[in-house]
Amino acid sequence: MAVEHTVKSFDDELKGLVEVVSRMAGLAEAQLQGAIQALVRRDGEIGNRVVQEDARIDDLEHQVSALTVRLLALRQPMAGDLRDIVSALKISSDLERIGDYAANIGKRVIALSQTAPFRLPAGIPRMGWLVQNILHEVMEAFTERDAAKALAAWQKDEEVDETYSGLFRELLTHMMEDPRNISACTHLLFIAKNIERVGDHATNVAETVYYMVRGEPLDAIRPKGDNTSLLTMPLPDGA
Amino acid sequence: MAVEHTVKSFDDELKGLVEVVSRMAGLAEAQLQGAIQALVRRDGEIGNRVVQEDARIDDLEHQVSALTVRLLALRQPMAGDLRDIVSALKISSDLERIGDYAANIGKRVIALSQTAPFRLPAGIPRMGWLVQNILHEVMEAFTERDAAKALAAWQKDEEVDETYSGLFRELLTHMMEDPRNISACTHLLFIAKNIERVGDHATNVAETVYYMVRGEPLDAIRPKGDNTSLLTMPLPDGA
Repeated sequence: MAVEHTVKSFDDELKGLVEVVSRMAGLAEAQLQGAIQALVRRDGEIGNRVVQEDARIDDLEHQVSALTVRLLALRQPMAGDLRDIVSALKISSDLERIGDYAANIGKRVIALSQTAPFRLPAGIPRMGWLVQNILHEVMEAFTERDAAKALAAWQKDEEVDETYSGLFRELLTHMMEDPRNISACTHLLFIAKNIERVGDHATNVAETVYYMVRGEPLDAIRPKGDNTSLLTMPLPDGA
Repeated sequence: MAVEHTVKSFDDELKGLVEVVSRMAGLAEAQLQGAIQALVRRDGEIGNRVVQEDARIDDLEHQVSALTVRLLALRQPMAGDLRDIVSALKISSDLERIGDYAANIGKRVIALSQTAPFRLPAGIPRMGWLVQNILHEVMEAFTERDAAKALAAWQKDEEVDETYSGLFRELLTHMMEDPRNISACTHLLFIAKNIERVGDHATNVAETVYYMVRGEPLDAIRPKGDNTSLLTMPLPDGA
């Protein structure tokens, strides 16, 4: 790696890094919003746009990686600055995954827009908006370096997990009532799971922000509401 | 962060880092194997053991993070060494996720061991063994610093994705045939998806190993065989 001369100060480069991460966050939020909108309107075209746009988030993640390696290699930062840089890298990888989940929802909406009409459980968009809200607050906490705000957002993920558990039951019930629902409900199950995973990644970001600001891990155990992996459904009547 | 004096050489510390990552990989492989075995035997106790053991992988990931930050802060590595360190950090985060997926399979096997008997599609354990194999080869490539081996393992993931697409159809068909299958098949769908995701993370590790050894990204586009997000199922007769 060639060592380049540069007139930019270390602080400027660090600010540049934070800026790219914030831009990634803005895109990730917009993608999630687009995916939920596509689902509610059953609009395959919006879904397709979300799929296409995902490459922009991936590009920004590569930028963050390059900036990080450059800062580490050329600037040899210590303690606090090092924590900021490693945190930016971690957050960018969570945001990239959030983008992937939004794109996967987009893909599934394309498939759903071609199936017979189905009843969309209100819990799915509700969960989507909730997660969007958490992500927004977490990223505010990042730019404002506010550990308390990160912690507050982090605690809201419990509601997401509970909503998801309820949805899981509801969708399985729809499938059992009428096999014509199975194909659509399976996509809806994965969409709900994707939203729940976005919530988990927003939670990761909150933990990273807390660590970045306070210099110590947020090691209280996160309230865990998703227990659907343990769920066995009652069989329908006569089964 | 206090700067500590140490008699260990940089090379020793770097070797220590690689060793912890290799230990994580060994555990992740064992966990995946345990999860598949639990599924095949429909053994909730093995499933439970896999769930409990996951904490050990998480602990090792924290060790990797701490070692990495220490190496970066105190040793101010350049170019090649920096790449090794950042690669170890990335790989450990993929291995941690693989551990999570194995634990989630374990949880679902506990649930499945309490349901009525069901037919386990042969494709699920087959896909599990295939992914285990890929992970094993990828980690050999890591310790041997063999970019060609990483690339060869990376290419096998296409078969995983194809197997998954077939399974997705098969499981939906079982559900449509008989609603009593829905609860078990839904868990099996998520188990199959978890295994497919483990394959994706093994693929990420292969990319990181390639980059670590060659110093340039493996940017050929990965063959993509999982298109189930786009799938619409034909409805059953009379539906």
